[in-house]
Amino acid sequence: MMEDYLKPFLKKGKAMFLAYDHGFEHGPKDLIGKSLDPEYILDLAVKGGYTGIILQKGIAEKYYTGTKYQRQIPLILKINGKTNLCSQEEPYSAINCRVEYAQQLGAQAVGYTIYLGSEKETKMFEDFGRIQEEAHRLNMAAIAWIYPRGKAVLNETSSEITQYAARVGLELGADLIKIKYPGSEEAMKEAIKAAGKTKVVLSGGPKIEEEEFLDEIKKVIKAGVIGVAVGRNVWQRDNALEITEKIKKIIFEV
Amino acid sequence: MMEDYLKPFLKKGKAMFLAYDHGFEHGPKDLIGKSLDPEYILDLAVKGGYTGIILQKGIAEKYYTGTKYQRQIPLILKINGKTNLCSQEEPYSAINCRVEYAQQLGAQAVGYTIYLGSEKETKMFEDFGRIQEEAHRLNMAAIAWIYPRGKAVLNETSSEITQYAARVGLELGADLIKIKYPGSEEAMKEAIKAAGKTKVVLSGGPKIEEEEFLDEIKKVIKAGVIGVAVGRNVWQRDNALEITEKIKKIIFEV
Amino acid sequence: MMEDYLKPFLKKGKAMFLAYDHGFEHGPKDLIGKSLDPEYILDLAVKGGYTGIILQKGIAEKYYTGTKYQRQIPLILKINGKTNLCSQEEPYSAINCRVEYAQQLGAQAVGYTIYLGSEKETKMFEDFGRIQEEAHRLNMAAIAWIYPRGKAVLNETSSEITQYAARVGLELGADLIKIKYPGSEEAMKEAIKAAGKTKVVLSGGPKIEEEEFLDEIKKVIKAGVIGVAVGRNVWQRDNALEITEKIKKIIFEV
Amino acid sequence: MMEDYLKPFLKKGKAMFLAYDHGFEHGPKDLIGKSLDPEYILDLAVKGGYTGIILQKGIAEKYYTGTKYQRQIPLILKINGKTNLCSQEEPYSAINCRVEYAQQLGAQAVGYTIYLGSEKETKMFEDFGRIQEEAHRLNMAAIAWIYPRGKAVLNETSSEITQYAARVGLELGADLIKIKYPGSEEAMKEAIKAAGKTKVVLSGGPKIEEEEFLDEIKKVIKAGVIGVAVGRNVWQRDNALEITEKIKKIIFEV
Amino acid sequence: MMEDYLKPFLKKGKAMFLAYDHGFEHGPKDLIGKSLDPEYILDLAVKGGYTGIILQKGIAEKYYTGTKYQRQIPLILKINGKTNLCSQEEPYSAINCRVEYAQQLGAQAVGYTIYLGSEKETKMFEDFGRIQEEAHRLNMAAIAWIYPRGKAVLNETSSEITQYAARVGLELGADLIKIKYPGSEEAMKEAIKAAGKTKVVLSGGPKIEEEEFLDEIKKVIKAGVIGVAVGRNVWQRDNALEITEKIKKIIFEV
Repeated sequence: MMEDYLKPFLKKGKAMFLAYDHGFEHGPKDLIGKSLDPEYILDLAVKGGYTGIILQKGIAEKYYTGTKYQRQIPLILKINGKTNLCSQEEPYSAINCRVEYAQQLGAQAVGYTIYLGSEKETKMFEDFGRIQEEAHRLNMAAIAWIYPRGKAVLNETSSEITQYAARVGLELGADLIKIKYPGSEEAMKEAIKAAGKTKVVLSGGPKIEEEEFLDEIKKVIKAGVIGVAVGRNVWQRDNALEITEKIKKIIFEV
Repeated sequence: MMEDYLKPFLKKGKAMFLAYDHGFEHGPKDLIGKSLDPEYILDLAVKGGYTGIILQKGIAEKYYTGTKYQRQIPLILKINGKTNLCSQEEPYSAINCRVEYAQQLGAQAVGYTIYLGSEKETKMFEDFGRIQEEAHRLNMAAIAWIYPRGKAVLNETSSEITQYAARVGLELGADLIKIKYPGSEEAMKEAIKAAGKTKVVLSGGPKIEEEEFLDEIKKVIKAGVIGVAVGRNVWQRDNALEITEKIKKIIFEV
Repeated sequence: MMEDYLKPFLKKGKAMFLAYDHGFEHGPKDLIGKSLDPEYILDLAVKGGYTGIILQKGIAEKYYTGTKYQRQIPLILKINGKTNLCSQEEPYSAINCRVEYAQQLGAQAVGYTIYLGSEKETKMFEDFGRIQEEAHRLNMAAIAWIYPRGKAVLNETSSEITQYAARVGLELGADLIKIKYPGSEEAMKEAIKAAGKTKVVLSGGPKIEEEEFLDEIKKVIKAGVIGVAVGRNVWQRDNALEITEKIKKIIFEV
Repeated sequence: MMEDYLKPFLKKGKAMFLAYDHGFEHGPKDLIGKSLDPEYILDLAVKGGYTGIILQKGIAEKYYTGTKYQRQIPLILKINGKTNLCSQEEPYSAINCRVEYAQQLGAQAVGYTIYLGSEKETKMFEDFGRIQEEAHRLNMAAIAWIYPRGKAVLNETSSEITQYAARVGLELGADLIKIKYPGSEEAMKEAIKAAGKTKVVLSGGPKIEEEEFLDEIKKVIKAGVIGVAVGRNVWQRDNALEITEKIKKIIFEV
Repeated sequence: MMEDYLKPFLKKGKAMFLAYDHGFEHGPKDLIGKSLDPEYILDLAVKGGYTGIILQKGIAEKYYTGTKYQRQIPLILKINGKTNLCSQEEPYSAINCRVEYAQQLGAQAVGYTIYLGSEKETKMFEDFGRIQEEAHRLNMAAIAWIYPRGKAVLNETSSEITQYAARVGLELGADLIKIKYPGSEEAMKEAIKAAGKTKVVLSGGPKIEEEEFLDEIKKVIKAGVIGVAVGRNVWQRDNALEITEKIKKIIFEV
């Protein structure tokens, strides 16, 4: 039972993922310039030495499966998603891909977003419960995006709620969780302790100043995350490969 | 995984579909004159050289399956639908035909409408997720009608929302999407870029002036759609075959 | 695929059905005098020469299956139903019998009520979608009672809504629909045209004057229905067999 | 199809059931004195010559299955239930035992409560529809408790509503129904007529004066019920065996 | 059918469980000091001589399954859970682990929380109904946490409601129930009587004064519970092993 489901995605025990599901979650307005093209992103992921790429089903099926990319970089298939069009008050993100289909597309892990504190939280625990078991049955990793949200959540990135998110990831059996920056190295350290043997990566978030962003990564790496899942802070820049090199250094050359 | 599910429906890589599900969606009042009769429509589709016919289950089963038409024109079975009787505020269109049954009726593709931005959006993503996988398992194309609608959608055909619709089609793994005219060639070009390897056809819409309609088609063809799905603008006219010829020229003789 | 699922129920291509699910839909207060007894009704159906009997599961199982009646008259099992006790504003009628069980009880067709325009319309399209496929798989006819109802329906028997009901029956793949009298021969003729290859029978409705009722039947037969499904207008009268003879003449001796 | 599913529960065609699900439905406050102990009840049922015992899953599994009682008295497993804690306005009672499991516990019949007229009525028709078919497939009887209830029901024991309840039991295919006393022998007679070949037992109800209770039983037996399902009026008394003898006389020595 | 599903968890017929699902239910703020670390807890459970450990899926999978602990202490897998973030007015706790998966993780029992009196009570009865049958099919114990809660419940630990909770545990077929202290030995005795052959353990609850806590345990042991499930009152103290010894004495040396 102690299979290492994350092994395909780690290099020296560290992870650097390129996330690219924003076209679904936020619309193409996020996909500035060349980043609208999935092949540009896949090339970037390969050249940049990312240890995993995060895609929704359709882009995987049309740009990754059976292509050279499948041999070059492992895939995390994000199997739920929603748009930002309707009310986000008590969010729920629906499954659009079965775990088995994700495997057929070449994925070695599935990703699922849980909005902790949303009134639809129970439905997401049920969903993730089934997904996690199915993933392990198929020898795949189960990765949870855990984002506190909903009327009951006053501060989505407080230290306390971030620790809670991290702990729920562990209790539900996620192999890895993707959580937001809780504001300080110390707060991230606490969250990582709460997550126990469940590994933690930083969720990159919207584009900020390069220096600020790299500083954030330094802090969370010190705090003990095994890596980051970045997107907009990389491919919304012209110097995507350059900043990738900087991130890589922080993660792998500690 | 790079099967070309659309192949049966393309001629020189282009598509000209005749849509005929209006009796369900809008009622027989749309089916002016001879167009009330499915055989008139099927004859028109064959004579006009359409590359695919779009029908609901019942009409397929009673007029297409096992008839000469099945040998003459490929079928896209529209597997969900709703009437225009009750509230359309947050629309949802229910599945009335399994993908497997569609195949038994002779269909080589299934069509499903997603109302992007509707509060029932999540249910439609789940539905389409399953349908898409089932279709590909059966070697059929999965086609999404993507129409932004619901209280959250202020302008259903803006350039931005059309790009979003197109992108969601790609992210969800549609092989082809049917979207509305976003008002200009430029806007359609942007949507097509957002859709990537997912092909795009124009949704014909309600009857407008012939010249205006043909002009719209010219623009979207220039923009890069692979074709159109027309209905009312053809069979609500006496000169249905004539206008068909004009459309055909625009699509195939570029 | 062009099996004639209706064949067991037709005589010279015409149908005369005796409906008897009113004990469920309206309560025993409808079942005046001898009509409370299912055997009286079954005898009447046989003696009267009806071409089909319409029953709910329980009455079929206890009075029809394995009895002489099973050899004498074919069965349409009505597989959904509701009482008239609670709110009828946006009606939905739940399935209480699987299609396969209906077949085990000796039925050669299943009946299902769709309240067109009800806010639960989508659920009924889903239900009927599955039922229709299951029925055809088992070589049984799928019959839809299509009754426009709900806040959105201002006039339940207008010519326009009746045409819509008829068309939806065709689009959903019903082999036969049972619809209400739209007020004139002309309106019924339009509905029948909209229904195409889906056959139409008149739904008898509450008891009215004999002359008026027979006149209605004459009109719809002229309009092109293949028959009628009668109940209260027959078995709520003492002269049930006599009026049956009159109906029979109108239907079969045109 | 005319199996006699009720046979194991009848003596001279009559039924005398001891009901004991009150601990679930009303709480232990109903289970006065020795009646809190299931073994006391089972002993009473055996000694009293009851023709069936009605239990929920847990009590059956722990006190009946595999014990001497299983050889001494047949079991009706009540497979749905609810507490009286939350709102009873539009009641629904959830299934907590599959029919197949009931059979594994030794039951030869399953019982299910339908609250006729409740807004959740449709769900109960669906539930009972499936249960009835499953029971017959396993050669077990399907028994319906039919209790009119909900805002739409003004008088839960009027003659008219009781007839309706009885008829719905027949239409849904119950082998036996358990209904409340409608106030007179005449009203019960009408209900029994409405139920046709579906057998009827009286639901005993809350404890009343012995004489009044026995009188009620006399009346319903005269009216034609095949027996009674008693509980509180028996085991809430010290002279439980004595009153059992009196009931037995009324039922079996007519 | 009289398997003793609880056998693996009993010593001299008594039970002393260490509960550790608080990281999910209340967040890591409950997990004071070393108790944040699951291995600390598992060590404590083993050293303290607990007869069972209660974990959620994720902690079991990552810290128990296939480790030395699996050989040292039997596992009760808590298969539902919720956070304390959103509204608790009418609570429901969702299943995140199938019974079969629990068994694969090494569990010999499953635990499920029922909020008695919550408006979602019916859903929990359905859930537990299925879980209980699945557990017994797999030769595992089915344990119910029964906590009265919801607007309809005025006093969650009154003697009357506690008896009701206990009885529902029996009626639903729980092998063991975990209930709260109803305020007195006498009240607990009544609850235990209501539970019949379903065994009862005390739910430890939030940390209170040591003396008060031990006194509570003495009382419930006298009242007849087979043991306790403790958590915060043990591992929120520095002297966790010491207090464990005191509890052990009370339970096993009566």
